[in-house]
Amino acid sequence: MLTKTTAETLGLYTDYYELSMAQGYFLAGKKEDIVVFDFFFRTNPFEGGFLVFAGLGDFLQSLSRFRYSQEDLNYLENRGFCDEFLNYLKDFSFKGTILSVREGEIVFPGEPILRVEGSIIEAQLIETLLLNILNFQSLIATKSFRMKLVCGEKNYAEFGLRRAHGTGGIQASRAAIIGGASSTSNVYAGSLYGIPVSGTMAHSWVQSFDDELTAFRTYARFNPNHTILLVDTYDTLCSGIPNTITVAKEMEAIGHKIIGIRMDSGDLAYLSKKARKMLDAAGLKYIKIIVSNQLNEYVIRSLDEQNAPIDGYGIGTELVTGKPDAALDGVYKLALCNDHPRMKLSENVEKMTYPGRKSLYRYYDSEGNFFRDGILLDDEEPDSCDCIHNPILPERCTMVNGLTRENLHIKVYENEVITNTLSSPQECHEYLMSRAALLPAEHKRYIMPHIYKVGTSIKLLNLRDEVRKKMGKKSV
Amino acid sequence: MLTKTTAETLGLYTDYYELSMAQGYFLAGKKEDIVVFDFFFRTNPFEGGFLVFAGLGDFLQSLSRFRYSQEDLNYLENRGFCDEFLNYLKDFSFKGTILSVREGEIVFPGEPILRVEGSIIEAQLIETLLLNILNFQSLIATKSFRMKLVCGEKNYAEFGLRRAHGTGGIQASRAAIIGGASSTSNVYAGSLYGIPVSGTMAHSWVQSFDDELTAFRTYARFNPNHTILLVDTYDTLCSGIPNTITVAKEMEAIGHKIIGIRMDSGDLAYLSKKARKMLDAAGLKYIKIIVSNQLNEYVIRSLDEQNAPIDGYGIGTELVTGKPDAALDGVYKLALCNDHPRMKLSENVEKMTYPGRKSLYRYYDSEGNFFRDGILLDDEEPDSCDCIHNPILPERCTMVNGLTRENLHIKVYENEVITNTLSSPQECHEYLMSRAALLPAEHKRYIMPHIYKVGTSIKLLNLRDEVRKKMGKKSV
Repeated sequence: MLTKTTAETLGLYTDYYELSMAQGYFLAGKKEDIVVFDFFFRTNPFEGGFLVFAGLGDFLQSLSRFRYSQEDLNYLENRGFCDEFLNYLKDFSFKGTILSVREGEIVFPGEPILRVEGSIIEAQLIETLLLNILNFQSLIATKSFRMKLVCGEKNYAEFGLRRAHGTGGIQASRAAIIGGASSTSNVYAGSLYGIPVSGTMAHSWVQSFDDELTAFRTYARFNPNHTILLVDTYDTLCSGIPNTITVAKEMEAIGHKIIGIRMDSGDLAYLSKKARKMLDAAGLKYIKIIVSNQLNEYVIRSLDEQNAPIDGYGIGTELVTGKPDAALDGVYKLALCNDHPRMKLSENVEKMTYPGRKSLYRYYDSEGNFFRDGILLDDEEPDSCDCIHNPILPERCTMVNGLTRENLHIKVYENEVITNTLSSPQECHEYLMSRAALLPAEHKRYIMPHIYKVGTSIKLLNLRDEVRKKMGKKSV
Repeated sequence: MLTKTTAETLGLYTDYYELSMAQGYFLAGKKEDIVVFDFFFRTNPFEGGFLVFAGLGDFLQSLSRFRYSQEDLNYLENRGFCDEFLNYLKDFSFKGTILSVREGEIVFPGEPILRVEGSIIEAQLIETLLLNILNFQSLIATKSFRMKLVCGEKNYAEFGLRRAHGTGGIQASRAAIIGGASSTSNVYAGSLYGIPVSGTMAHSWVQSFDDELTAFRTYARFNPNHTILLVDTYDTLCSGIPNTITVAKEMEAIGHKIIGIRMDSGDLAYLSKKARKMLDAAGLKYIKIIVSNQLNEYVIRSLDEQNAPIDGYGIGTELVTGKPDAALDGVYKLALCNDHPRMKLSENVEKMTYPGRKSLYRYYDSEGNFFRDGILLDDEEPDSCDCIHNPILPERCTMVNGLTRENLHIKVYENEVITNTLSSPQECHEYLMSRAALLPAEHKRYIMPHIYKVGTSIKLLNLRDEVRKKMGKKSV
């Protein structure tokens, strides 16, 4: 399921039209055309105020496998692709250049997050792979960071593999860690990415014994220092907690402490309070209470507001599927072809794109916080850009001269080599936390977050108007 | 990304607690315990009236790879698993027996769709893999079949890979075909599963030329009999359609017909009507109109109600992510351990499970349509079960004696061999269509569908009450 051959190439991990267009470029004599594509998204997920950019490491690593095996070529030959083009694909590899913001960066709608430069065929063929990885991992990292914002110092583990979208669950676990999960239940992802794994016990453990007390006792005996007992198989307060107390005392008598309990059904606020009292009354203040069952950032905040004495969370479905959005609308659009700036006009004005090779700058206020982002043309001297304009109403603008700024694009891939050290998911999370600390709180709230302003230089606006006029004339 | 080693084992494709419980069973001397687990779900997705069961073929094929390589064992050793257990895992393979309904079957909440029998360790370890595959593919096959119900004879292509959940997009394409998609854009899935692939062109093709007309002309020239022109890059009615007409006439002059146009933005009802008129007026009635852009079953139905002259659909995000549900709540619960029936009581009454080894029967009415489903104990003589009872209110019951019935469980895996011929996704779809024809229409509607009744034999109800009483007594 995860793979079909032992030495797997990824050249077919693409939409069919990428290949038919690539053949068209090839036959039309355009294969040496040099292009620039931008990756950007249009709407913040979860009605939030930002996106956590993730997936870059996976994407860059998969690029070296974006090639065509003889089996792949045979498949394409049977679909009617022509010999000359198949011969070209035989030696294909992506040789272009990629600039990108760092993985874990906080980004906003409309920004050129990542820029691909190369031949039109190579840049076109990798579109689907790029979007597939970056859209999904950014969605999940963002969802996870929303959990992090409410969990604060409390740990939350991701354990959604059973509800994840097939093998996408592997990438979900990676992105969940970038967003802030302390661990995952997904052992495959743990071994692949070197991220922490954790787990408690299932109802089946308890059910497999004749009674709950024996089940608890046996688990604790073989996991004396790693025991978290699942207390809701039969009756949390009448059975699960009393049996926990019995076992915890027995373990104390032989010098061990169990770690905690997990509750997976019922009213978690009510039950956690009752359980806490029972455990405390038995002198077991050290036993932690972990809860799970259809949690999301709103449920966790509600539990917190009710002062539920919960020490940690297990979050599955909503985290790994990015509910309710389930997808990020990231796109990959042509901006330059052989030095001619290109744009899409579209029937929907919000689908209009920015032409040209662009850079992305972040401007900081006097306290060092994020203030504005600016999209400039790459060949503009940023010192000469005093003012960042609203792209729809250009008369609305913000002076940025004198402000500290940072070019967010770094070169990450060139000459078939990853040119920037890959960060582990844990390192990406640390970077995210350092950036989130600079994002003013009003952009992080859940209800109607303040819109972070992203503008453009006047030169880019002028170029857009120029291209628009020209295209409007030519297209009819 | 799709795989980490060349000869990949899947033993780590599991939740961490499965492994720690497995070690516990091993150390507690329970490794020879024989168990039965049931796979079932609790709520129909999409507020619909049924589920299309899918994923079985992928699941069975992956079972043979559910083993542990030395690398996997080293990883587990570093996590603290003990030598004796790791030694056991070295030679592990799943040797149990699996009964299941056919892939493509229509099933309902609470039914034991699939039954796993084997040693407690093997049955426990495969839980996550099983749920991950079956939950997701059933969700997507169901979503796809909802599209099929509104598309009728019109084709719809799945092209969601760019918005799919990472590599889960591969399995999404498979399930979309089972539900009724005519093709996928996902070339990888096409080559892996032998399903049809298709595609048109992207905006980048049009943008990469100096003008739209040249872009259209060039594409048609190199794809004389496979051309579907994307008409909304600049202006659908003022540019895209006029240029289509020009190119179609040029192609006619040299003996070719282009296939169609695709519209990907704007009001699709309005634009398709205008476009149809313009094409017809130019004598190009044969040019088909394909639309895309955030389609789902409700949008398609609305377009149909408006008599939009659309010939086919491209459906991406909503189809491959199963929006808005994004997950199916399928679970895997212990029902029998060493011939002792087991059940879970839980804090939520709807999470209570059925104990024992069970069979699933479908009863047909006099016209051959689905009438009731009945869950019986496996050792019951179905002839002696005259009556199917509501599991919550047993006095509500339906007589089924004399009705044609079918045991929906077939043996699909035994002695490490797949014992029932695997069906291709297309064959699963055909089976689905044959079954859907027998499902009364009121269960297929979108708004408040009629609930299909699933009951149990009185023997199963009595067993449940007996076990419940016993567990209630023992658990405290």
